[in-house]
Amino acid sequence: MQTTPGKGFRTIWPHPDADGIVQIIDQRQLPHRFEIRDLVSAADGAWAIREMLVRGAPLIGATAAWSLYLAAVEAKRLHGPAEDQLACIRSAAATLEQARPTAVNLRWALRRCLDALDGDAVDFAERLEAEAEAIAEEDVAVCRNIGKHGVSLLETIAADKAGQPVNVLTHCNAGALATVNWGTATAPIYLAKERGIPVHVWVDETRPRNQGSQLTAWELSQCGIDHTVIVDNAGGHLMQHGKVDICITGTDRTTRNGDVVNKIGTYLKALAAVDNAVPFYVALPSSTVDWESDDGFDIPIEEREPGEVTHVSGLDGDTARSVRTVPKESAVANYAFDVTPARLVTGLITERGICAASEAGLAGLFPERA
Amino acid sequence: MQTTPGKGFRTIWPHPDADGIVQIIDQRQLPHRFEIRDLVSAADGAWAIREMLVRGAPLIGATAAWSLYLAAVEAKRLHGPAEDQLACIRSAAATLEQARPTAVNLRWALRRCLDALDGDAVDFAERLEAEAEAIAEEDVAVCRNIGKHGVSLLETIAADKAGQPVNVLTHCNAGALATVNWGTATAPIYLAKERGIPVHVWVDETRPRNQGSQLTAWELSQCGIDHTVIVDNAGGHLMQHGKVDICITGTDRTTRNGDVVNKIGTYLKALAAVDNAVPFYVALPSSTVDWESDDGFDIPIEEREPGEVTHVSGLDGDTARSVRTVPKESAVANYAFDVTPARLVTGLITERGICAASEAGLAGLFPERA
Repeated sequence: MQTTPGKGFRTIWPHPDADGIVQIIDQRQLPHRFEIRDLVSAADGAWAIREMLVRGAPLIGATAAWSLYLAAVEAKRLHGPAEDQLACIRSAAATLEQARPTAVNLRWALRRCLDALDGDAVDFAERLEAEAEAIAEEDVAVCRNIGKHGVSLLETIAADKAGQPVNVLTHCNAGALATVNWGTATAPIYLAKERGIPVHVWVDETRPRNQGSQLTAWELSQCGIDHTVIVDNAGGHLMQHGKVDICITGTDRTTRNGDVVNKIGTYLKALAAVDNAVPFYVALPSSTVDWESDDGFDIPIEEREPGEVTHVSGLDGDTARSVRTVPKESAVANYAFDVTPARLVTGLITERGICAASEAGLAGLFPERA
Repeated sequence: MQTTPGKGFRTIWPHPDADGIVQIIDQRQLPHRFEIRDLVSAADGAWAIREMLVRGAPLIGATAAWSLYLAAVEAKRLHGPAEDQLACIRSAAATLEQARPTAVNLRWALRRCLDALDGDAVDFAERLEAEAEAIAEEDVAVCRNIGKHGVSLLETIAADKAGQPVNVLTHCNAGALATVNWGTATAPIYLAKERGIPVHVWVDETRPRNQGSQLTAWELSQCGIDHTVIVDNAGGHLMQHGKVDICITGTDRTTRNGDVVNKIGTYLKALAAVDNAVPFYVALPSSTVDWESDDGFDIPIEEREPGEVTHVSGLDGDTARSVRTVPKESAVANYAFDVTPARLVTGLITERGICAASEAGLAGLFPERA
């Protein structure tokens, strides 16, 4: 099992020896334990998405696709007529769609898989397995292309730094763990390493859930990339003092006008970037674009359970524990995402190139969707 | 012992039954335990400031003053000549001054106490006890006056809200626990409660150390004030959605041009406030103004030990524990403060009234310092 992002790494894959089982990394256990979990049903897949064993827009999409394959395997076991099997699969798709309300890739992947069943499909499971594999392999290629376009930005900055590392700030985890491999925001960083460009990454710990300190830091450590974990409050100070050359984040959904829905707190970093003339880029596969929404502020923002705010997980010696930090008497609120208005975003790094965060920018690269 | 901020509450006081002992609340144990600690020497006082048993600019000042009294009691025990006693006291002052580099009240209180020894002082301990008492009682009166001026802002907002609560966002703890009583940012809130103005407070948890969830939330709970704890990433989203009527924070040091040095992350909230036309106020006693500094960016920013970032403390059941959230392989950085430029600050709430965050604004209220 390859545990280092890069060639051969996968965050989701069919069980090598058994049909009807898909395997994932239980990302809740990282960075302390690398644990593989079997998914044997679409309900397992929905649970893994909801409970965030897998997270990140592209990986949520891939998991939804593989989960629909599991639904088809279950339906096939029932030996019913094709219409009944199809009804089971559609029902699973409806459940999966509710697992995370903000991630547009979830809907995108489910739609694509259901579309693949149109026509005279005889073996739904076989058809969906092929589609899930295609989605996963395309994601790998797309992320690699995001990396190729994004690394040009790092090369340009490096050219002015006389061997000093390029300082990248990132928020949450838009890394290999958020995709099938390579990541979106991290892909340019991994390619920079391949090309010998010195890079240092400021990693926002990213409360709640700490995907920065738990996932991004783990990934970068695995790949031997120089990085420093900071609290979410620190990025503005670093930018004021010239310690950040570029910000790159991912996105859970970007609307056709270029508004970026991403992990809560992204907006604050974009404000600081603009205030300090630091370029702020968002890396995304085009599957993350919500072509039907004209405005990020129309997107429903997921509110998650209060325990993510009241408690923090970590290691006490070698034992994983969760401690309560908020007094029992206090109310808490837990908004998962915020919207960074397009006006604050320097550019979008996509699999087809870099464009302005605007309808015209996106239409230039994706004319078939405009 | 009064454990609820308001009349009769104190965060530091001379032991009621024993000379040469000063008592404080060990704020590291809150919100889970209310624990009183004895300070018996100036070294104890410096340790309590450095290790943040006490924190907050005004309380650091009061603790420094009481610690110098403890130094004088120690010096007196030696029965040496007055010059030797004075040398001991000055040496203690030098140590105390190093305990927290950013807090200007520390220097201010030490200077004031040392000045009180000029002339023909016969009993240094007696003189310093009187000075420490005066500093503490003045702080109580000053905070109460900050509250009186600040509550007018809340009254004005409430007048337009038809009985709906005024939503205040605050960062870190600039509450009674950061002062001797009442707090700076919280004083207007406590006075609003006295006057029957409905208030709801958004409490930033304030990583690292979580002074928001651990101290501000505790204070507000003790006083029965409606509040909601949020992660530091959430405030921008709340402001975008009209859920914040006013931001009020404290400050560790404000320079004569109105730049605000405060807990790391304050700058990000001020940016969001400006971007969403939410008024952003800073509450401070004039002892927190550094009249000798023209620019916040000249102030040294304290870097604290990495454990505050790598670990989080809380309760596991009834047991207080600290868990590691950052992988051992990752570097961390821990900047304690940032600078909010005066241009982002709507106004300063002082004991003499509210003024613009500018040299002219401060000079208008404090002409004797201009």
